[in-house]
Amino acid sequence: MKAFAIGAVAAAASFAAAAQSSVTLFGVVDAGVARVSATGKGHVDGLMTGGNYTSRLGFRGVEDLGGGMAASFWLEGETATDVGTSAGLNFVRRSTVSLSGRWGELRLGRDYTANYVPFLSFDVYGQRGIGTIEHFATAAGALTVNGAAASDIRNSNSVTYFLPANLGGVYGNLQYAFGERSSSTVASATASKKQGNYAGASLGYASGPLNIGGGYGNFSDVSRAAAYLTDYSIGSLGASYDFGFIKPIFLYQTERADGKLGQPDFKFDTIAIALSAPFGASTVRATYHSYNNKTAGTAGNNDAAKLSLGYVYNLSKRTALYADVARLRNKGSASFVIGGLGGSVVAGAPTAGGTSTAFGVGIRHSF
Amino acid sequence: MKAFAIGAVAAAASFAAAAQSSVTLFGVVDAGVARVSATGKGHVDGLMTGGNYTSRLGFRGVEDLGGGMAASFWLEGETATDVGTSAGLNFVRRSTVSLSGRWGELRLGRDYTANYVPFLSFDVYGQRGIGTIEHFATAAGALTVNGAAASDIRNSNSVTYFLPANLGGVYGNLQYAFGERSSSTVASATASKKQGNYAGASLGYASGPLNIGGGYGNFSDVSRAAAYLTDYSIGSLGASYDFGFIKPIFLYQTERADGKLGQPDFKFDTIAIALSAPFGASTVRATYHSYNNKTAGTAGNNDAAKLSLGYVYNLSKRTALYADVARLRNKGSASFVIGGLGGSVVAGAPTAGGTSTAFGVGIRHSF
Amino acid sequence: MKAFAIGAVAAAASFAAAAQSSVTLFGVVDAGVARVSATGKGHVDGLMTGGNYTSRLGFRGVEDLGGGMAASFWLEGETATDVGTSAGLNFVRRSTVSLSGRWGELRLGRDYTANYVPFLSFDVYGQRGIGTIEHFATAAGALTVNGAAASDIRNSNSVTYFLPANLGGVYGNLQYAFGERSSSTVASATASKKQGNYAGASLGYASGPLNIGGGYGNFSDVSRAAAYLTDYSIGSLGASYDFGFIKPIFLYQTERADGKLGQPDFKFDTIAIALSAPFGASTVRATYHSYNNKTAGTAGNNDAAKLSLGYVYNLSKRTALYADVARLRNKGSASFVIGGLGGSVVAGAPTAGGTSTAFGVGIRHSF
Repeated sequence: MKAFAIGAVAAAASFAAAAQSSVTLFGVVDAGVARVSATGKGHVDGLMTGGNYTSRLGFRGVEDLGGGMAASFWLEGETATDVGTSAGLNFVRRSTVSLSGRWGELRLGRDYTANYVPFLSFDVYGQRGIGTIEHFATAAGALTVNGAAASDIRNSNSVTYFLPANLGGVYGNLQYAFGERSSSTVASATASKKQGNYAGASLGYASGPLNIGGGYGNFSDVSRAAAYLTDYSIGSLGASYDFGFIKPIFLYQTERADGKLGQPDFKFDTIAIALSAPFGASTVRATYHSYNNKTAGTAGNNDAAKLSLGYVYNLSKRTALYADVARLRNKGSASFVIGGLGGSVVAGAPTAGGTSTAFGVGIRHSF
Repeated sequence: MKAFAIGAVAAAASFAAAAQSSVTLFGVVDAGVARVSATGKGHVDGLMTGGNYTSRLGFRGVEDLGGGMAASFWLEGETATDVGTSAGLNFVRRSTVSLSGRWGELRLGRDYTANYVPFLSFDVYGQRGIGTIEHFATAAGALTVNGAAASDIRNSNSVTYFLPANLGGVYGNLQYAFGERSSSTVASATASKKQGNYAGASLGYASGPLNIGGGYGNFSDVSRAAAYLTDYSIGSLGASYDFGFIKPIFLYQTERADGKLGQPDFKFDTIAIALSAPFGASTVRATYHSYNNKTAGTAGNNDAAKLSLGYVYNLSKRTALYADVARLRNKGSASFVIGGLGGSVVAGAPTAGGTSTAFGVGIRHSF
Repeated sequence: MKAFAIGAVAAAASFAAAAQSSVTLFGVVDAGVARVSATGKGHVDGLMTGGNYTSRLGFRGVEDLGGGMAASFWLEGETATDVGTSAGLNFVRRSTVSLSGRWGELRLGRDYTANYVPFLSFDVYGQRGIGTIEHFATAAGALTVNGAAASDIRNSNSVTYFLPANLGGVYGNLQYAFGERSSSTVASATASKKQGNYAGASLGYASGPLNIGGGYGNFSDVSRAAAYLTDYSIGSLGASYDFGFIKPIFLYQTERADGKLGQPDFKFDTIAIALSAPFGASTVRATYHSYNNKTAGTAGNNDAAKLSLGYVYNLSKRTALYADVARLRNKGSASFVIGGLGGSVVAGAPTAGGTSTAFGVGIRHSF
C-alpha cells in the first residue's frame, strides 16, 4: 500500500508557498483463485478480489501550512478486481479532510470508528482475506446505524481528534459521529432523536517491539432488525510483541447490545491469538480465534471458531504472491461462512453447526 | 479551487510535439459541523459537506495543437465528504471536450446552462453553503428536462460556443442542448418532439473593478409535475463593483413557465444584494435576497426572503476555515428550507410561512 | 489513446529499487452531433459520446520486478461525455492484475474474452461509432452469463495466459473464466453447476504488412431468455494486409447456441470486408458487413447488412475530428438499429425488415 506520489515536482513549481505539498494517487489491485466450501452447500470455485489486501483506489494529499500546521485530505474506495467494480467507484472506505498541528489532528468525514482501530491493527491479516479474524458484528440481527445497514467499522458524519505523534509512543483518538436525526423525532420503540449518535475512543502504546492498544465505541438507540432500539457498544483490546523472527499477537473484543423497553440484551466475545513470522522475502501467518455467544439463556448456542494459515512471498515492496487456507467450525445454531473475500466467492451459509473451509492463491499489487 | 498540475514534467518528455500539454487532477474536500432548523421540524445537527465550496473530484487537461489551437477536456463530479460519496463518483458537474482557438471555444458535453452563468458568478457564495442565494427553480412543481428531474443549472447533450478572451472585457456564450426526442413523437398534453430542447446565451463585460453580465435560456415543452407541457424560460442579470475594501453585488433572476393547452402560467423573481469585504487573510460576506411569486392570482402567496452572513479565514490559497449563519423567512404558503449543504443535513420543510435557520463552521481544502 | 505518464519523475525519487515503474492516468473524451433514423421511428438528433473512440477513464501501471519480470495493473471504465457518466464511474471495461516475464503474462480479473480479440482488432472502427461492425450477439434471445446480462465481449472472474512478445510475430492467449456456481446446484432446465464457465483461446500472426488471427470461446450452460440452458460458442477469424496507401481487412464470425433438453439450436454468421486508407493527416474508412441467420428452419429470416463510410482528420496524435455515415438494411423479421454510440442517441428499432441510417460529426481527444 505504499502510495505513489504524483506531481510533486510540478507542485513545487506551482505553489512556491507550499513546497512540501503533494497529491498522491494510490491503490491496490489484488486477485486470486479460491475455493470456498460450506457444509450442505458444496463448494464454489472462483476469482477472489482482495485476498491479501483490499483492492482499492484512492487520492490523498497534504498541504504544508507552515508553523507545523498542515491540511490534508483522503478519498479511498474499494474496487472489485474480479468484476470491474461494477457497482461503481465510491469513497466509502475513507473520505476525510483534516487540519493537523503539534496539538494533534482534527479529522472530519467518513472514517474508521474509534473502536475498530485495535481490531484492525492487531489482526495479522488486516481484516481481509481467507485467514482474517471474522468480524461477526451483526450476529444478533441486522443493525441499522445512521439509517444504513449496520457496521461498527466505519462512521459517516464523524468528527475525530487524534493525539499527536510525539507522545513517547502513546497514540489514540476520540470520535463523535452524528446520527443526524431531527430533534423533533417522536420517541417510539424504533425511533429516537439520538438514533445513530456515536461516541468512541481508542488509546495505545507502541514502543520498540511492544504494541498494546484498546478501543471503545457506543452507538445510541440504533435499531436492531428494524424491530426495536438498542444501545450497541463494542470494546476491544490487543497486544503484540515483535521478537524479530516471530511476532505473537493477542486480540479480544466484546460486543453488547442493550435492548430497550424490555427487549433482550445480547453479548458476544471474540478472542484471537495469532503470529506472523518473516524470513527473507516470505512471511508466514497463523490465526486462531473463537467467537462466543455470551447472551443469557442462549450462551454457547451460537459459537464459532476459526483456524487459518497463510504464506506471503514478497516479489517487491509493492507486489506479493500469497496462499491461504482456513477452516471455520460452527457450534449449536451458528452457521457462519468464511468471508473476507469481498463477497465475490461465496458458498452460502453452512447448515447449523456445520463447517466452512476455504483456500486460495493470488497476486497483490500496490501502487 | 486552484488545481494541481500532475505530470507536467513527464508530459514534456513524452510529447515533444505538445510541450504545453498537461493533465490535472483536482478537487475540493470540504466538511463542517452544522445545525439546520425549520419551524415545526425542530433542528438537526450533523456533518455538512461542501459548506464553503462544493466537494468534488475532477480530471482536466489541455493539449496545445499549435497555431493558437488547443484541445481540452474536463471531467468533474461532486463528492460527499460526510458519507464517502456512497452513491458513486460520476462526472455530472461537468463532462466536456473542447476545441479552441482565436475564434473562441466550441465545447460539447454536459456543462452549466448559459442562463445559469450569471447566477453562479454573481452569488458571493458561489451557489453553495448555508449563505447561498437559494435557487428555487422548481417552486411551481417538479420540472422534467431531458427525461430527468428538472434543473436549469446544467445541460446534458449540449453544444456551446464561447467568445474568445481577447474582446476587451466582453465575454459570453451561446448554447444549444438536445432533448433527444424522436421526430415521430406523437404530440399530446405531456409529449412533444421538441421536449427538452434548450437554447440560451449569456453576455457580460468585465473590466477593472466592474463586472456586469446577463443570461437567458429556454427549455421547450418540458413537462411540469408530469402533467402537462410548458415552455420554461429563465433570465438573469448581475453586476458587481470592486472597491478593493468592499465589493457590492446585485443579482436579478426571473423565471417563467408558460403553460400550454390552457394550463396556468407561473412567474417567479429573485432579487439579491450582497457584499464581500476582504481584510488580510479574512473575507466577510453578506447576502440578502427575496424570492417573489409573481404568478397571476397567487402573487405573493409563495414568497420567501433570506439573510446570511459569513466569514472565511484563509489559512493558505488552498485551505480555509469558515463560519456561516442564515435565516430564511417564508410567506403565505411557502415552506422553503435552507439548502446549499448537499442534502446532508436537513431539517425538513418548515410549516407554511415558517422560518428556517442554519449555522455551521467548517474546513475547506482544495487541491 | 496515447496515455499520459504521471509522476514518473517523482516515482524515480521515491522508489530507487523500482526505477522503471510508472502509474498512468489515461482516457478518451469523445463527443459529437449525430442523427439516427429507423423505419417507422423517425429520427433523433442528439449528442453522441464516443463516436470515434469509446469515452473512458483509466489508471494503469507497471512495476519492474527485475530479471525480466514485471507486475502491472489496469483499471478502465467507460464514461458518457454527453450526460456526465451519470450512472457512475466503474472499471467494467478492464480490471486486471498481471505478472509477466519472458514466459508470457498471467492476467487475473475482468477483461476481453479470448474470442473477441480478433473481432475487435480486425474491425477498422475498433467496435465503436456509427460505422462499426455490429455485434448482434444476443439476436436469438437474451443470454445470461455469470448471472448478468449476456455478453461475449468481456469476462469477469477470468484467468488468462498471454504468449510472450518474442515469438516471431505469433501472438495469442488462453482464457478460463469462472461461472462461480455452487457444486451443489441442482441441475434443471435453467440451472447447472457449470453455468457461465468459459474457456477460450486466440491465436494470430503479425509480421510486416500481414496480420491474421482467430479466436474461439465457449460459455457452458448459459441461460437463454431465462428459459432454458444452452452452450454458447463463438469463433472468429480476421486478416488484414497493409499496402501502405490502403489496408483491406476481412473478418468472419460464427455464433452457435446449442439448445439443451430438446430446445432449438441457433446459428448466426457475420462476414465483413473493410478498408482503411491514410493520406496525410487523414484516414478514410469503409466497411460492408452482413449478419446472417443460419438457424435451421428460419435461415435468412433475420438477416441484416450494413454499409459505412468514415473520415478521420487527425489534429495531433491525440486529437481528431471525424465524420461517419452508415446504412443498415434488415431482411425478413430482423429489426436491428445502428448502434455503436453508447446508447446515447437512439431512434428505436425499425419496423421488421426496415432500414436504419445514421450520420454524425465529432471531436475525439485522448489523454
